[in-house]
Amino acid sequence: MSVQGTILVLDGVSTNRIMLKVQLTAAWYHVVQGEKLAGLGALLRRTRPDLVLTAQTLPDGTASDVKKLMAVDPALADVPIVAITPQNDRAARLKALSDGLDDVLGYPFKDTLLLARVRSMLRSRADRQELSLGDANQSIGFGEAAQIPLAPPAIAQIALLTQTPRAGALWGSALAQQTRHRLSNYTLPDLHGVFSDPAPDAIVIELAPGGSGGHILADLKSRSTTRNTVLIGVLSNEDATLAAEALDKGADAICMGGFHPDEISLRLDTQIARKTRDDKLRASIRKDLSESLTDPLTRLHNRRFAMRALDQIAHQALETGRGFALMLADLDHFKAINDRFGHAGGDIVLTETARRLQEATEKAGFVARIGGEEFMIGLPHCSAEQALKLADKICESICNKPFCLPDESVLTSVTISVGVKWCSSPDLNIADRRNAVGQLIRSADQALYAAKNAGRNQVHIRSSAA
Amino acid sequence: MSVQGTILVLDGVSTNRIMLKVQLTAAWYHVVQGEKLAGLGALLRRTRPDLVLTAQTLPDGTASDVKKLMAVDPALADVPIVAITPQNDRAARLKALSDGLDDVLGYPFKDTLLLARVRSMLRSRADRQELSLGDANQSIGFGEAAQIPLAPPAIAQIALLTQTPRAGALWGSALAQQTRHRLSNYTLPDLHGVFSDPAPDAIVIELAPGGSGGHILADLKSRSTTRNTVLIGVLSNEDATLAAEALDKGADAICMGGFHPDEISLRLDTQIARKTRDDKLRASIRKDLSESLTDPLTRLHNRRFAMRALDQIAHQALETGRGFALMLADLDHFKAINDRFGHAGGDIVLTETARRLQEATEKAGFVARIGGEEFMIGLPHCSAEQALKLADKICESICNKPFCLPDESVLTSVTISVGVKWCSSPDLNIADRRNAVGQLIRSADQALYAAKNAGRNQVHIRSSAA
Repeated sequence: MSVQGTILVLDGVSTNRIMLKVQLTAAWYHVVQGEKLAGLGALLRRTRPDLVLTAQTLPDGTASDVKKLMAVDPALADVPIVAITPQNDRAARLKALSDGLDDVLGYPFKDTLLLARVRSMLRSRADRQELSLGDANQSIGFGEAAQIPLAPPAIAQIALLTQTPRAGALWGSALAQQTRHRLSNYTLPDLHGVFSDPAPDAIVIELAPGGSGGHILADLKSRSTTRNTVLIGVLSNEDATLAAEALDKGADAICMGGFHPDEISLRLDTQIARKTRDDKLRASIRKDLSESLTDPLTRLHNRRFAMRALDQIAHQALETGRGFALMLADLDHFKAINDRFGHAGGDIVLTETARRLQEATEKAGFVARIGGEEFMIGLPHCSAEQALKLADKICESICNKPFCLPDESVLTSVTISVGVKWCSSPDLNIADRRNAVGQLIRSADQALYAAKNAGRNQVHIRSSAA
Repeated sequence: MSVQGTILVLDGVSTNRIMLKVQLTAAWYHVVQGEKLAGLGALLRRTRPDLVLTAQTLPDGTASDVKKLMAVDPALADVPIVAITPQNDRAARLKALSDGLDDVLGYPFKDTLLLARVRSMLRSRADRQELSLGDANQSIGFGEAAQIPLAPPAIAQIALLTQTPRAGALWGSALAQQTRHRLSNYTLPDLHGVFSDPAPDAIVIELAPGGSGGHILADLKSRSTTRNTVLIGVLSNEDATLAAEALDKGADAICMGGFHPDEISLRLDTQIARKTRDDKLRASIRKDLSESLTDPLTRLHNRRFAMRALDQIAHQALETGRGFALMLADLDHFKAINDRFGHAGGDIVLTETARRLQEATEKAGFVARIGGEEFMIGLPHCSAEQALKLADKICESICNKPFCLPDESVLTSVTISVGVKWCSSPDLNIADRRNAVGQLIRSADQALYAAKNAGRNQVHIRSSAA
């Protein structure tokens, strides 16, 4: 992405292009120009715009063709496209929206409004891109917003937020004939129902000229329940300043000149489809984050998680002055199990061990698989006695109950050895946290080694004094 | 987090609490009340507020004590705290800021401004929280914003953005005596230099009453370079409406009644420390995302990445109508290497194999390690001949050059078998994408099996026709 934001202006008429270029360049955007569909693919790949402003009609096609061309390229499918139509041509306006264009601007338009729409679209794109890895080598896999296809919108919950109950009733009955979505009415300033969980997928808000309604957009954007809800503002007039303010405060789209149910319905479909895609992207990122700290076989935490959690437990101990414990638990003679029952059998023993360790530890701390048959248990806020008691419980949870394999083999001799390091806060080396954690692990490892040496299936402990 | 946003009001004087409660409840926030420091820990743990508004002076302590108490609890360290001081008590105001409070409100204050500050703080907190996993079991490890300690701010780049060069010169010389940060001047509306890369860490903006300067905040928030820059607005008067507008458009803090270098300097330190922590959190999340798709041993992509990339390649093939290939490559007799040279030796062979596969594939597609000694290579847009040629190159890259181990052993007999599945777009089952990818992998696996069966160290291919 260009530092300044690159905008592609597409128009067969050069005076139109130049006019837009002047307006946008004055606002410190980088403008590139195109005239027609032919050669557009190459132009897009070369200039990588963050936004496309295109005339509804091009010499060799329409805005809809631009949309189709960009939708099939994963690197471009995410770039917003705004169609420019004559101000009074409602049919062209509705056509562009039903073709899936992200927004429509009526020509001629005021600077204020043009720039506010550009800001709003660039901001929403930057929100999505913030977490993409931005690494060329990762281009397959991330930049993924583009790859989650825009599904036909499901039935969504729409809240209509009007200044009077009467306006709400009128909006509701007019819109119900145009949309499949479920509608509910609220009258300003009563937002209580709108914040309920789950929040509506979209909110259509009546913005009163000169009214204080604008801060409601900012309010909705600041609440955890509605921050990702689609916000469509409706203005009874053509007040470009008010429209620009609303966009700057978080509206996703603005409809001017009153409530037109056909336009609102099309905008709802476009915006809800975008929201659905963004929601999926967020869910996918959340899943990836969770996976990065999870052991795929046992679903316990993994080594990365364990190191981070241990660092945090040590840090907390410094703050609170309370003791904590670290355990390393290692299945005894695990190689023999693998050799005899194969990897599949070994995996079942590991998974069942993970389950038992988790069950024994309950909520007293974290359990992680940090190597083949090695587990780490971290216990914040505990005495040496508590740690030792839990370690014994863990040891017994493995040896006291046989392991059953799918081929009906029953393993009665599985055991685990546990090394415990208990630490009181004053023994931590404050100056060198990273090293302190390494030292803790070495101590626990020495205790584990002692347990193995003494005959396995037992617990050894090192406390600070040792 | 409460659905509505929970705000804790802390004040020893009940009329003050009640007044705030009335204002905040009218704006649909959930208000809880406290009187003093004693018992505050339990109250905080029970009510989990999203924001704390505290009197500067409590019966048994100060706002600074509240800050200290919350800073040591990872679950609370991220909650913003606003001190309430008498309007004209500048000393109290500066004291609160230098104690690290997130903001200061002068009492009495207008509804407009109170609510805009609340919105701004809740929005910034929700931004941070959006990606935390929100799962109680993950409470150690994420919710991590809290755990990255606020370091003493490093030297930062500050842009001063004024209406006139004269104001800029005055601000610059006054502030230079108060702050260690590096200052540079810009005059509105020339934002060009501000968008340069790297962007400044913070921008202090002169907001002219009645001026059009407000949209500049929205502009800065919409650009990829400055969206995370600290934005501090300076108002020459006490215009609460203008201040509220600026907060709603993205300002992180507002200083009213002119440019006071001491206050600006303190606010810069607080805000830059917060930004530094947020930047680290974003970097940590980016790293986690990358790790979730990376094989830790070889640093190739992992199986999760491979499945996703393959799905995408198949999807693209449907759009473009071009062919693509999938290869499975498996080291021959790897167990024998592990048995003879130990896991450490085996790991070196795997790492070197990964390097050679990546080198052979270059940018033609992706290479992933999908199992112990098994690799997947995906090639978008290629002919069957190109795929076969690359597979041969891969095969030769392993057998033509010995592998050296750290103990100076040289392995000359390492080989790899490769199964290739080439697919033309029309052969893909469009209706069932998930199944289609599974079928591709099974075909490649059959080709790999044929290569192993035919004596290993060779390539077999299945094309669509097969």
